[in-house]
Amino acid sequence: MDPPGTLPQAARRLNNDFDSVYDDELLLEVERLNIDSASFVQMEGQGDVAAQILETVRTRGKQHNPVTGSGGMLLGRVARVGAALAELKSPLAELQKGDRVATLVSLTLTPLKIDRIVSVDPKRHQIVCAGQAVLFASGMAAKMPPDLPESVALAAFDVAGAAPQVARLIENARQGGLGKPGARVLILGCGGKSGLLTSAAARRAGAGRIVGVERDEQAASSARRLGAVDEIVLGDANDAVGVAARAMKAGGGEFDLAVSCVNVPDAEMSAILATRDGGVIYYFSMSTSFTKAALGAEGVSRDVTMIVGNGYAPAHAESTLALLRAEPVLREIFIERYQGP
Amino acid sequence: MDPPGTLPQAARRLNNDFDSVYDDELLLEVERLNIDSASFVQMEGQGDVAAQILETVRTRGKQHNPVTGSGGMLLGRVARVGAALAELKSPLAELQKGDRVATLVSLTLTPLKIDRIVSVDPKRHQIVCAGQAVLFASGMAAKMPPDLPESVALAAFDVAGAAPQVARLIENARQGGLGKPGARVLILGCGGKSGLLTSAAARRAGAGRIVGVERDEQAASSARRLGAVDEIVLGDANDAVGVAARAMKAGGGEFDLAVSCVNVPDAEMSAILATRDGGVIYYFSMSTSFTKAALGAEGVSRDVTMIVGNGYAPAHAESTLALLRAEPVLREIFIERYQGP
Repeated sequence: MDPPGTLPQAARRLNNDFDSVYDDELLLEVERLNIDSASFVQMEGQGDVAAQILETVRTRGKQHNPVTGSGGMLLGRVARVGAALAELKSPLAELQKGDRVATLVSLTLTPLKIDRIVSVDPKRHQIVCAGQAVLFASGMAAKMPPDLPESVALAAFDVAGAAPQVARLIENARQGGLGKPGARVLILGCGGKSGLLTSAAARRAGAGRIVGVERDEQAASSARRLGAVDEIVLGDANDAVGVAARAMKAGGGEFDLAVSCVNVPDAEMSAILATRDGGVIYYFSMSTSFTKAALGAEGVSRDVTMIVGNGYAPAHAESTLALLRAEPVLREIFIERYQGP
Repeated sequence: MDPPGTLPQAARRLNNDFDSVYDDELLLEVERLNIDSASFVQMEGQGDVAAQILETVRTRGKQHNPVTGSGGMLLGRVARVGAALAELKSPLAELQKGDRVATLVSLTLTPLKIDRIVSVDPKRHQIVCAGQAVLFASGMAAKMPPDLPESVALAAFDVAGAAPQVARLIENARQGGLGKPGARVLILGCGGKSGLLTSAAARRAGAGRIVGVERDEQAASSARRLGAVDEIVLGDANDAVGVAARAMKAGGGEFDLAVSCVNVPDAEMSAILATRDGGVIYYFSMSTSFTKAALGAEGVSRDVTMIVGNGYAPAHAESTLALLRAEPVLREIFIERYQGP
């Protein structure tokens, strides 16, 4: 709605009047939001998270954090499958009324109305609420799996792109990757949600030495328990010089691939300083600044390929669930951490 | 200086008291700033560019645009080569007092003091001024070439990373590229400085069909005269749906590689919508938003590799000068457009 003609992600405001749902749209009854980590942490710092979400959704018609620019995804039940979705070959056409699904496109482009917020779960960055949302024909949603608690599956789907992307980066030179099993890999924020998933994915993809950086002792102990990283450096990723030096010492040299999964700003340089010329940096963190990465690498004359983490990869939801099923300890940690009340 | 311990690019404020220049630093007498295009356009929209630059440099100790986060580079004369640079194997050690050089690291991390601004050149985004600046041992500078006007070389050095990066993306799969001569290439902003350079580089690297998008008729006519692109679409890159459709029509389908050289925000989606699954997008524009790119690709479930334009590439200054020498029309256009008074 504002500015007119803009695509939904770039728009300041979407139409969330759901009396007029179109035939090429899917209507959902919303039950739970899973807020992007960078966004939740930013709102927590400002005070009442529920009030900020209600205000954002009221003014923008979507949960699009105006400061971080990020969103999250949601869990809901299919209320109506538009009649035109099948002929448009939309993946949404496979769904049926009553299916419980998680959306796989960002809340920053999902028309949303919230009737009320029931509770805020600061541990899981999830919001139990009642409302409605719409998915477009180009959108995507995954049915909730029968073998995992819903809040756990929701948490995993939120970062579903990360693990398959990292596996490809190690396996496949064609995607901007190294094509080099045995690669030395650095995971910044290795004890967080995407950090744990990418550590496990990197290990399974044949990485050589993996070093993780984590600032939170409890998150680090999860990473230790998972055992996918060879060594953990406790430290803050925005102490670039210190963290890069300690990580390289733990890794035995510069890294072939660095993956940034932190949820705080100013971690661009840690990855750049620790990565070899010709290496790859995969910024999955939504708190990454484009200019800080671009000018930071230039500023130290480092010839690294820096990739913007794409939330989508083919079959990413299925592949992330498969990873959780294949890694019992990872699954345990996810259930302990994300199983909702 | 603020916050203490931060690297220069991330810092809010640098020490620009040049009474205390260290032995591992190079001191320059500054003659001309070349402001990053996104930054200059933003400041122009706010009013008096000279006043804004003086204020930024006064408060931050560097020309680091607080809105766009970008800088530019500068032209000056070497005043003092720190005694320790040679043993640190800094590339700066090859310079001598009196050499005229352009800095190849961003102004966002270059300590700078401006004594006075002589003139602002809105056409070339250059500022004639008097002042001092410091380069660190890890920095880089290029001697001004004897065969090109200085303001022209300065303009080319400012975007020296772009052309060699694009050539590598087409030639070499290892750098996240396609490894595919004959690739279908889209250049957004094909008539601007980096747009002209990358068009020429893509053509020489063996691209197949090249389509350029340009919103400015005069810039488009430069691109036509250069002749590196096969077809030019006149349009605004932030009209994503319209521009992508017209570009794909002109190109005969989706693109293998899209290069974004625009200097205005909200052009992320044009590139995403026009690029095939498995293709590569190279965002050279400093007005690119990380979250808009990441969430935009996810939002339309597009499996593209999105690369953050790195201002540095090995031998980028030499290679960009070599391109200007090898392409007489490009050189002519650069001289007409960037030769200073």
